[in-house]
Amino acid sequence: MAYFPDISNVKYEGAASKNPFAFKYYNPEELVNGKTMEELLRFSVAYWHTFTAEGTDPFGVGTAQRPWDQLKGMDLAKARVEAAFELFEKLNVPFFCFHDVDIAPEGSTLKETYKNLDEIVDIIKGYMKTSKTKLLWNTANMFTHPRYVHGAATSNHADVYAYSAAKVKKGLEIGKELGAENYVFWGGREGYETLLNTDMKLEQDNLARFFHMAIEYAKEIGFDAPFLIEPKPKEPTKHQYDFDVATSLAFLQKYNLTDYFKFNVEANHATLAGHTFEHELRVARINGMLGSVDANQGDTLLGWDTDEFPTDLYSTTLAMYEILKNGGLGRGGLNFDAKVRRGSFEADDLFHAHIAGMDSFAIGLKVANKLIEDKVLDHFIEERYRSFSEGIGLDIVEGKTDLKQLEAYALQLNNIENKSGRQERLKALINQYLLETLSSVTV
Amino acid sequence: MAYFPDISNVKYEGAASKNPFAFKYYNPEELVNGKTMEELLRFSVAYWHTFTAEGTDPFGVGTAQRPWDQLKGMDLAKARVEAAFELFEKLNVPFFCFHDVDIAPEGSTLKETYKNLDEIVDIIKGYMKTSKTKLLWNTANMFTHPRYVHGAATSNHADVYAYSAAKVKKGLEIGKELGAENYVFWGGREGYETLLNTDMKLEQDNLARFFHMAIEYAKEIGFDAPFLIEPKPKEPTKHQYDFDVATSLAFLQKYNLTDYFKFNVEANHATLAGHTFEHELRVARINGMLGSVDANQGDTLLGWDTDEFPTDLYSTTLAMYEILKNGGLGRGGLNFDAKVRRGSFEADDLFHAHIAGMDSFAIGLKVANKLIEDKVLDHFIEERYRSFSEGIGLDIVEGKTDLKQLEAYALQLNNIENKSGRQERLKALINQYLLETLSSVTV
Amino acid sequence: MAYFPDISNVKYEGAASKNPFAFKYYNPEELVNGKTMEELLRFSVAYWHTFTAEGTDPFGVGTAQRPWDQLKGMDLAKARVEAAFELFEKLNVPFFCFHDVDIAPEGSTLKETYKNLDEIVDIIKGYMKTSKTKLLWNTANMFTHPRYVHGAATSNHADVYAYSAAKVKKGLEIGKELGAENYVFWGGREGYETLLNTDMKLEQDNLARFFHMAIEYAKEIGFDAPFLIEPKPKEPTKHQYDFDVATSLAFLQKYNLTDYFKFNVEANHATLAGHTFEHELRVARINGMLGSVDANQGDTLLGWDTDEFPTDLYSTTLAMYEILKNGGLGRGGLNFDAKVRRGSFEADDLFHAHIAGMDSFAIGLKVANKLIEDKVLDHFIEERYRSFSEGIGLDIVEGKTDLKQLEAYALQLNNIENKSGRQERLKALINQYLLETLSSVTV
Amino acid sequence: MAYFPDISNVKYEGAASKNPFAFKYYNPEELVNGKTMEELLRFSVAYWHTFTAEGTDPFGVGTAQRPWDQLKGMDLAKARVEAAFELFEKLNVPFFCFHDVDIAPEGSTLKETYKNLDEIVDIIKGYMKTSKTKLLWNTANMFTHPRYVHGAATSNHADVYAYSAAKVKKGLEIGKELGAENYVFWGGREGYETLLNTDMKLEQDNLARFFHMAIEYAKEIGFDAPFLIEPKPKEPTKHQYDFDVATSLAFLQKYNLTDYFKFNVEANHATLAGHTFEHELRVARINGMLGSVDANQGDTLLGWDTDEFPTDLYSTTLAMYEILKNGGLGRGGLNFDAKVRRGSFEADDLFHAHIAGMDSFAIGLKVANKLIEDKVLDHFIEERYRSFSEGIGLDIVEGKTDLKQLEAYALQLNNIENKSGRQERLKALINQYLLETLSSVTV
Repeated sequence: MAYFPDISNVKYEGAASKNPFAFKYYNPEELVNGKTMEELLRFSVAYWHTFTAEGTDPFGVGTAQRPWDQLKGMDLAKARVEAAFELFEKLNVPFFCFHDVDIAPEGSTLKETYKNLDEIVDIIKGYMKTSKTKLLWNTANMFTHPRYVHGAATSNHADVYAYSAAKVKKGLEIGKELGAENYVFWGGREGYETLLNTDMKLEQDNLARFFHMAIEYAKEIGFDAPFLIEPKPKEPTKHQYDFDVATSLAFLQKYNLTDYFKFNVEANHATLAGHTFEHELRVARINGMLGSVDANQGDTLLGWDTDEFPTDLYSTTLAMYEILKNGGLGRGGLNFDAKVRRGSFEADDLFHAHIAGMDSFAIGLKVANKLIEDKVLDHFIEERYRSFSEGIGLDIVEGKTDLKQLEAYALQLNNIENKSGRQERLKALINQYLLETLSSVTV
Repeated sequence: MAYFPDISNVKYEGAASKNPFAFKYYNPEELVNGKTMEELLRFSVAYWHTFTAEGTDPFGVGTAQRPWDQLKGMDLAKARVEAAFELFEKLNVPFFCFHDVDIAPEGSTLKETYKNLDEIVDIIKGYMKTSKTKLLWNTANMFTHPRYVHGAATSNHADVYAYSAAKVKKGLEIGKELGAENYVFWGGREGYETLLNTDMKLEQDNLARFFHMAIEYAKEIGFDAPFLIEPKPKEPTKHQYDFDVATSLAFLQKYNLTDYFKFNVEANHATLAGHTFEHELRVARINGMLGSVDANQGDTLLGWDTDEFPTDLYSTTLAMYEILKNGGLGRGGLNFDAKVRRGSFEADDLFHAHIAGMDSFAIGLKVANKLIEDKVLDHFIEERYRSFSEGIGLDIVEGKTDLKQLEAYALQLNNIENKSGRQERLKALINQYLLETLSSVTV
Repeated sequence: MAYFPDISNVKYEGAASKNPFAFKYYNPEELVNGKTMEELLRFSVAYWHTFTAEGTDPFGVGTAQRPWDQLKGMDLAKARVEAAFELFEKLNVPFFCFHDVDIAPEGSTLKETYKNLDEIVDIIKGYMKTSKTKLLWNTANMFTHPRYVHGAATSNHADVYAYSAAKVKKGLEIGKELGAENYVFWGGREGYETLLNTDMKLEQDNLARFFHMAIEYAKEIGFDAPFLIEPKPKEPTKHQYDFDVATSLAFLQKYNLTDYFKFNVEANHATLAGHTFEHELRVARINGMLGSVDANQGDTLLGWDTDEFPTDLYSTTLAMYEILKNGGLGRGGLNFDAKVRRGSFEADDLFHAHIAGMDSFAIGLKVANKLIEDKVLDHFIEERYRSFSEGIGLDIVEGKTDLKQLEAYALQLNNIENKSGRQERLKALINQYLLETLSSVTV
Repeated sequence: MAYFPDISNVKYEGAASKNPFAFKYYNPEELVNGKTMEELLRFSVAYWHTFTAEGTDPFGVGTAQRPWDQLKGMDLAKARVEAAFELFEKLNVPFFCFHDVDIAPEGSTLKETYKNLDEIVDIIKGYMKTSKTKLLWNTANMFTHPRYVHGAATSNHADVYAYSAAKVKKGLEIGKELGAENYVFWGGREGYETLLNTDMKLEQDNLARFFHMAIEYAKEIGFDAPFLIEPKPKEPTKHQYDFDVATSLAFLQKYNLTDYFKFNVEANHATLAGHTFEHELRVARINGMLGSVDANQGDTLLGWDTDEFPTDLYSTTLAMYEILKNGGLGRGGLNFDAKVRRGSFEADDLFHAHIAGMDSFAIGLKVANKLIEDKVLDHFIEERYRSFSEGIGLDIVEGKTDLKQLEAYALQLNNIENKSGRQERLKALINQYLLETLSSVTV
């Protein structure tokens, strides 16, 4: 292996290490509440950002300096696979994810595209035999090519719809072939640019039909991976149908799809929709639909998807809190759908960035676990809602009352006494846990 | 009547009128596609903004100069009713809306509050006997009083929940008494300030129980007005449960409430949630749940609910387009949930503002109607989606195909040819219709 | 000429025309207040969006279908020039604008780049001999190439700074050669990604030095075109130094550059900075620094630069109001820094879009002119500030008073009576003028 | 003293303390780089949020439960002073700040207002004799009263201008009387609601005249405190003239006011303007105008001024970094312009909130100091800009070159090699410093 020659395998060296190519907080084998960090965090590398992307932005061409830069076509595709498994091993990550076009170039016909895919999938399968790294999920890219200009499964053009169906069929087959833990749908072009030319109802009906066909085919081939919808509000389209978890839930409920789908929640998509990351995780969780996570972060002062590597420890802590409360992610994982900044164009930055992200989630895991162990929030919440565990409150929760009874109760109330929500105190406690959980001091 | 002495009844005088107290475009009796403007627009005055509000903002006390300023308590409440019906008549509006606390002051006990309400409701009923103005909807204010600091039907405190239930019970009775066309729920405190202290699932379960009890009680007393949820994303709370139409739809679906609820869509709440007004109307419409409209506008460069009177003709045109496509608003209406600017503190401004709003929607109505008559968008859309009316497209729509057939079809496709979405041309057409519909020229 | 074969020259046909390839409102020869529309509006086509861009977005490759698609290198560059002058003639636009890299490909060395530029500049000069279309401004693209990854005149690397200096030197020479009316600086990479690695002061000092050198060189070669700074807040960098007009003004003042620079104000950049278009124009105007305009529009519900063709008539009206109040744009113009939507990929859309934009500004011009002629706002404002034209107010304006005198005056005041700002009434008047100015009715 | 009976003086107890009423990180006497934390942080309590505010929001009345709730008028004012000095002592804060109306009620005439102020100022002066707490700054509230509806020093009404001048005159006298370290101007109504009725140039000219008169009067009475402008972009007005630091700098430069003014930078105002807190501090710093800080935080997902107590350790660290690089705040301080959440309505929350804020800035101080001591960023930046310390780069910086020389240099360049900006690595280092600075481990 020869793609990242100067960097050897990344090891855990502890918080005081000054080695930039060491984990300071992520120790894969360390037990947290009976499971290893590796089992709990289930990190995944995103093939597209790390091996395919070139560092372009809307005003500039690529800047990325990669060892495989000079190659083209299938040679490039093969070199990337090789580099990918080298990186997986060096970072010791248990999972990776890809879109079809990330791993193999599109051919001039669909048939040729299939051929390219088959060839690379075979090579990947070969690597997977000796690698620990498994496929967290795969998906079909139905947004880059011009044919998707007006949508894929919501295109106004039936041919595009059919083409997209073929891509998903192939994607399901690849997922089965490679033992994917999940299969993802991100509807990058499933939305509209202007209502003036859009039949929103037909488009959404068609999208639901598309999903039902995919379910049928997955059953037929015995591919039992959960399907994941990845909500995003408004980029690239002016308005996307999977705006956020709640919107997507409304869609899934309307079209009887809730039994087959969960959510792949992305931090940056959450904030673009006006929500915190933890909000989206919570909504997914309390609806029993938290499937997997795209671990990145956005910049809330910018209006586009920056897909930064996650380093905000508040965000990783509150995310891990929801994930632990969910009993973990099941077959999901933490996929770094994150790209090095355009200015971080050296190959070394791929290591710096993944180490930063993995350490940040490791810290989040430990802090969240300690918050749960100490019942810091649980006790407060239990006390706060105590009135619903007895008397009229219990009647309400058990559905044993009605407006008349409640009115009678209210009429005899004297003063209603609320208690402080203690937001400032709780935030101070989070800081204290953040700073002390990893030290020897017991909070 | 003596509250607005200098301004006589507002008449339609046509587009060239320089009289600031005349309608230039709203002619209540003018027929548009077989119905009068009055029937189609169903304008409503919002009691709170126009008769109760004082022109405060977070950094300043009230500025409004109102003839009833010097009064207090029930005297003030009665004067406002009198002034209200004077304004209704002068503006010739067919509807009005109120929260309970707008019309009568809260007493020191719930019982006294009821008494105050009963007294004013009687007076209102008396006015309604001789006035043409009817009640579009009423609602219970469950957000101003400190008791709702942590929510009403989603409070952590069962007493608050019970108190809220009593308020809604009374509200339903008042609605029935006054013949309200609808009953509205706006959950101003139904959300959270921080997830750190919030049991979101319990709160939402309780909210659903609350709605079911309200449905039961409305049935019991024979009040058959549609219930309307008014979505709003994030003010006053950090995050409200009824974020937007789609989010609220997910809630209603989950808790089997869709048969009883429609939406009261507000323009400014739409933009605060990151959507256009017409988007929210469209989502409500294609789900069969467009109930009523809070007709105002926001400032998309500001991050709070400015509740301006609607004057943006693009917005009124596209809103009326959705409404006409919906077959009108049924029992709903266009309620001016809008306040004069704090700097527009003279009583005259109430007239200027309502005239501005009514004229703007009258223009929107005429332009939208002409767009529909001429099938400007319909023809374009029909042509655009034609591929779904035959061949493989029709099979898709009729559910007669599957991934395998679609793949076979896709494999034999040569080049897929999309057509331009023509957004710029359509926008130019909208401008042409806006400018020419009201002139004698036929576009 | 053969690039846009089906569309003949675009003529003015009036508001009732159904011909999509006719002007409905822009009549170049029509007099408005003594000048022709053409003289007042000074429209310009942006070379990059119309001849160079391919319809990519961050999630998709190009979609644009252009007659010159199959060409490459200098052949492509030459074909574009030919197509450009065909379009200029067909649209009858008096100006165009370009970045150096728009018109000629970069060579493998700077010398070769110069050679390519020289060759194309010669060809353009040839076309200009027989064309009415002149160069509104040119500029150097110092953002696309990877060398600018950390800035151009604010790069941390002196070589990049020198390279940028060479590009601007050449740009000034080209501007002189082609008789450019202005020379523009848009600092697409002059900003920072993170303060953690940025010496903001050094970077801004260097930028000022850069501008002073450019001024010296322009003097030396006798190129007297005004220099224009184009503010933009935050794309592509996280934070750009020319955030908005006021920020750029602070910079120019600090470094003694105000005598040499004016502003090129762009609508979409205004809204990205949290301002209206008219705000930015006003700030430039009252500081005597309104130089030119990038005529486009953004989508205030999206957080990135959408660069749409301008169709919002409120925006064009209020922009033309500022421009007319400025006594016109002098050597500036209205440059369509606007791109057809990615879904509007047909060549025809270039015509639809420019016609939409030109008609929209023609309407804005006429409505603004009528508002000024009728002194609609002037009268109101004159009356509103009358207190500063006499007594204590005049003393204030003339600098004849001090805090002690003002206190003495204030102490004897009884009640201060403000008057309504009448925002709603003024907005209704704007609507009336918008709808009636173009009809035969006199408002 | 009897206002906060249950809470004794707040002491430093260290990071492991579970006492909610103890400092865990702020140890006033601890030395950081030779100065005590108290000297470096210069904490100040904001009178308005803590003693005057009632917990209202735009949709709800006050919720705050305060021991002085039952009092009115001057009795209330006196009780608040007493409570204030009790809190200052219990929290051991060295400074406080107020607006005139915070400390004394407005009278029915200006004269009476003066009398009220004089009485309370006397009382405060009395307390200050025995208290360690000094006045960081005072200011005049020129935004709450209806007279300021259209502005104060930018009002269209000369009487309002004169009245405002009287208020500032009195404010300067009070500042001198109480030994204020600074005097602040926040132009809450100095902006516009709509350009349609606004003479922006006259308003800004008048504002400049106002400031010059204030400077003259301060000189006259020998009050030498720096004047501070507090930028804020857009609340309460649609658009405020002091949008951000750069905008305000442009204003000060234009009107020759830079010698007399510095900035009071507020975190939440920064984010409302689209900037980070540290950006605004940096801009002020490199222009030599960082005067003081309003220490709070906003919620970047909300569009209004939430004025939360600062708890985000990234923000406090990067803010303290700028402050330390500035050589401290001089006569400025860290004023908690922050309010407890409406749901945190108990008096205890005032303690929780201030402790949270003080601890958060103490952490920020220590982490920032360690970053500076270890030259973590300085080394990186020094290396990054090294090319400007020699050769052509040095010529650039020393102003010894021109475009022709730079072109000649550029023409002989082969490949320009940039280096990675290392953003991800730097962010990981910040996390490591945040977590380890306070532990015994040396990073």
